[in-house]
Amino acid sequence: MAKAIVQTRERLLQAALDLFQEKGYAACGMSEILARAQANSGSFYYFFRSKEDLLVAVLQRYEEMLFPVLLEPLWKKTEDPFERIFLLLAKYRELIVASNCTYGCPIGRLALEIEPTYEEAHRKIAANFEGWAGAVEQCLMEAREQGKIAKQVQTRRLSRFVLTVMEGGVMQSRSYRSVEPFDLAVEELRQYFQMLAMPTGERKRIGNGSDPRRAK
Amino acid sequence: MAKAIVQTRERLLQAALDLFQEKGYAACGMSEILARAQANSGSFYYFFRSKEDLLVAVLQRYEEMLFPVLLEPLWKKTEDPFERIFLLLAKYRELIVASNCTYGCPIGRLALEIEPTYEEAHRKIAANFEGWAGAVEQCLMEAREQGKIAKQVQTRRLSRFVLTVMEGGVMQSRSYRSVEPFDLAVEELRQYFQMLAMPTGERKRIGNGSDPRRAK
Repeated sequence: MAKAIVQTRERLLQAALDLFQEKGYAACGMSEILARAQANSGSFYYFFRSKEDLLVAVLQRYEEMLFPVLLEPLWKKTEDPFERIFLLLAKYRELIVASNCTYGCPIGRLALEIEPTYEEAHRKIAANFEGWAGAVEQCLMEAREQGKIAKQVQTRRLSRFVLTVMEGGVMQSRSYRSVEPFDLAVEELRQYFQMLAMPTGERKRIGNGSDPRRAK
Repeated sequence: MAKAIVQTRERLLQAALDLFQEKGYAACGMSEILARAQANSGSFYYFFRSKEDLLVAVLQRYEEMLFPVLLEPLWKKTEDPFERIFLLLAKYRELIVASNCTYGCPIGRLALEIEPTYEEAHRKIAANFEGWAGAVEQCLMEAREQGKIAKQVQTRRLSRFVLTVMEGGVMQSRSYRSVEPFDLAVEELRQYFQMLAMPTGERKRIGNGSDPRRAK
């Protein structure tokens, strides 16, 4: 019985997660969520106070998924901090291509859609951004410790910039129905990283961890 | 009589433009648009086939407004191509601050919200992105002609990158309810521009047009 209850909550959460991603928050009606979750409104109100409350739970779930679902499988592929950052970006490229260039980052989409008065939801959206950028910042700090970027690089600012570039690139690719805008953004970022890696005439290849030759 | 007809269409268009910006496309019902425009559904269907058709007209209007409303007033303030780019970004900062950090770029928002099946709308969204980035590209080409950035700089790619940074920065500021994420993104971009302006040890100040001293 307790298990059935947990399963109903999980079905509601998963249905909302999928539907908010497919259609957005406003376009997705309560009846649609209930139908997808095979639940009735009595069960819904047993678990959630409102649709907004469900939204907050969905955003909480995204936060919990960040490491095990998104980052961990990528981080296992390499120890190199720059490669990790560009693997993360390549993951979004995969999502864009697999969706025939209709992919929209669910968090970015909600950031722009949800009304500013839903303050708790926006705090959760910001927490998701913070988690993503925080993971990139961790990579940048490691890169700095390993002497791969200059000491003066502001890792917090640069990590938020990587998120900015991902979100802006995904957004454009969705409307152009082409992965090109995303690719251009990542190429430009890679060039910037290469420049940051050679602030005083040094040259280091970014993204493959090799070729640390100096051009002194 | 003809004038009254034009005014009705204009009122519908303006109401939709405002409401899509305030609430998004899906959250804004037809009855709300009619009420705001003080029009009835007969008038609506005289001018537009559907809500989607109205959306396309709104996006067309944004395209038409780009130069006279957004760019021209800024371009009049300076001839310097880098200053123009950073004035354009500063304009978005103004919009963020004036809205108490709830601003969302209406085009970016629609890019992520509108279903991919609305192909005409997405083509118009892409055309808006193209217009904005094209204006920035113009500035970059001038900067290159004036020797302010290296010949090798890919102006098309870099101009799309500026748009990417603006959109990603606006998005984060809305959820953090703070202008800081936007400011950080612009600062990082400015630093990149400064590096692009001194590819071979030259130093040129970006954004104020002066201080072209060389550090050879």
